[in-house]
Amino acid sequence: MRATLMYEAGDVRVEEVPDPVIARPTDALVRITASCICGSDLWPYGSMSAADGPNRTGHEFIGLVEDTGSEVTTLRRGDLVVAPFAISDNTCTFCREGMHTSCGNIMAGFWDDLVEEGGQAEAIRVPLADGTLVKLPVAPDSALIPSLLTLADVFPTGYHAATAGGVNERTVVSVIGDGAVGLLAVLAAKLLGAEQIILMGRHQERTDLGRNFGATDVVSARGEEGIEAVRDITRGHGTHVVLECVGAMPAYEQALGVVRPGGVISRVGLPQYEQAPIGFGTLFRHNNRLTGGPAPVRAYIEKLMPAVLDGSVEPGRVFDATTGLGGVPAGYQAMADRERLKVLVKS
Amino acid sequence: MRATLMYEAGDVRVEEVPDPVIARPTDALVRITASCICGSDLWPYGSMSAADGPNRTGHEFIGLVEDTGSEVTTLRRGDLVVAPFAISDNTCTFCREGMHTSCGNIMAGFWDDLVEEGGQAEAIRVPLADGTLVKLPVAPDSALIPSLLTLADVFPTGYHAATAGGVNERTVVSVIGDGAVGLLAVLAAKLLGAEQIILMGRHQERTDLGRNFGATDVVSARGEEGIEAVRDITRGHGTHVVLECVGAMPAYEQALGVVRPGGVISRVGLPQYEQAPIGFGTLFRHNNRLTGGPAPVRAYIEKLMPAVLDGSVEPGRVFDATTGLGGVPAGYQAMADRERLKVLVKS
Repeated sequence: MRATLMYEAGDVRVEEVPDPVIARPTDALVRITASCICGSDLWPYGSMSAADGPNRTGHEFIGLVEDTGSEVTTLRRGDLVVAPFAISDNTCTFCREGMHTSCGNIMAGFWDDLVEEGGQAEAIRVPLADGTLVKLPVAPDSALIPSLLTLADVFPTGYHAATAGGVNERTVVSVIGDGAVGLLAVLAAKLLGAEQIILMGRHQERTDLGRNFGATDVVSARGEEGIEAVRDITRGHGTHVVLECVGAMPAYEQALGVVRPGGVISRVGLPQYEQAPIGFGTLFRHNNRLTGGPAPVRAYIEKLMPAVLDGSVEPGRVFDATTGLGGVPAGYQAMADRERLKVLVKS
Repeated sequence: MRATLMYEAGDVRVEEVPDPVIARPTDALVRITASCICGSDLWPYGSMSAADGPNRTGHEFIGLVEDTGSEVTTLRRGDLVVAPFAISDNTCTFCREGMHTSCGNIMAGFWDDLVEEGGQAEAIRVPLADGTLVKLPVAPDSALIPSLLTLADVFPTGYHAATAGGVNERTVVSVIGDGAVGLLAVLAAKLLGAEQIILMGRHQERTDLGRNFGATDVVSARGEEGIEAVRDITRGHGTHVVLECVGAMPAYEQALGVVRPGGVISRVGLPQYEQAPIGFGTLFRHNNRLTGGPAPVRAYIEKLMPAVLDGSVEPGRVFDATTGLGGVPAGYQAMADRERLKVLVKS
């Protein structure tokens, strides 16, 4: 079959690889019908060294179950399923607490850590299939596929940012980043009833979509100027919640600048730093809180799916391009160049 | 009058200074009857340079109102009052949200930032007296004074750690630090019903008091060994909440080591660092949260006072020495040498 491999920064190829096979009784084989490229794929695309490759890529997909291991009980051939970006058994202590990205099962983990499997491919072996996969009540060619595909990562990730940040009807929110996660964090904040949603981003097509998703204000300035703009909008106070949807240090610094005393910074952008300021001069002084992490997507899929199915939300609008598997390398480049927001891949 | 001044690290003196006077219509003059030395006083006592001194010291006190400015309406001469370690108007937006340490009034702030006023003295000028001071329904020689004096800082600070961390009946808590704040964080966690309270500290007299306050387990080992011990107690999981009551980097690292996936580190020890690890390798990976800051003590005093007055809690047991004002310099040294836990000063 064909699958996508990343060899090093800037070098993504679609190649013939061995077909996946059932390796454990809890596995399922899934024939992928739709996948996509993630903003987080751009981090290795920008910096990966050849010594770390090649790796199979892609952690968001929808597909048809083709075969199941002997212990799989909830799925059968022909089921259309969506997979979160993390594998989990959905039964352990942490999964039961909604912390699926901390699943204690030895086979649990991130697709990105499995060098032999990836979602930007024709097929995939899914470990812990009963726990990981969620059935979709539509056909593979449904017009809802783009929106349902966002349930694999970006929509629940934005939603996780907002829920971890405690967004409610009395919350003034700022969202840092106009990528797919930032825009869906706007949508999530809107769903949770936020009083005011300030989107910080500088690509007008994207911030226009953000307004459509519920942003009440857009700040295109960055750095100190952007911070001043948000403070101007909020009577100098800053916002109760900041949804940091980028992961770079300047985004964290911006979050520190716009958070209100007693407010919370909720991070879902993969941090590109380990050390950061959290002492008296920054986070501590005004009792600011820090929350977030890799979204336990599996915990949110059933909750978010009904609104997708009834069309009351359209998170799939973050896709602004569609390609076949052969177009994946070009899709990476288009996203890295900010020519495309998010590329959908039809296998 | 006599007051305590810190000249530099290790150099604390009691000297004659001018008597305080009412400077603004919102001031009160308070004749101090009881004060104390704080664990946080030991940070400058260990490191302050002569160029930064001399400063008046002390931010916890009880005293009798001696005079009031023309705009003070809730206090009068003869009232016995306790003062939190931060001055606040108790009426601004942030105070109304319980964030008194972020009070927006221009006269608000920390006693420690006022070089001309301090609580380790015979008298003090209290700005924003109506907002800052809380009346005590006892006489200055009441046996309850030590416990009531802890309402100025250490008891509400421990309580803030526990409430900010979300401690409840289903919470397994670890407390890092067996100083007065750590021990009162244990008491606070007990008041909030914590299921299990693991105190990390290595001074047996102190950890014995911690057991008395409600600790169910004591871990005296530090570093990796201490982390292993806490993980052993918690089936390898770590604790839902970590109350970090020290402020040094090793304490933060210990907190990272013992926090459960999805759990929260609540800091009330004054951070002696600005940069710290919060990236994927530490805080982010398992959705660990960071909370806490300078306790908004004023928000907690009325809530905690009844249990002190009826004797159901005795936070004043953290005092293991009493001295007059002249004994303050020796008190600093005894606390720095860990010979004393907390020294009460009777003026």
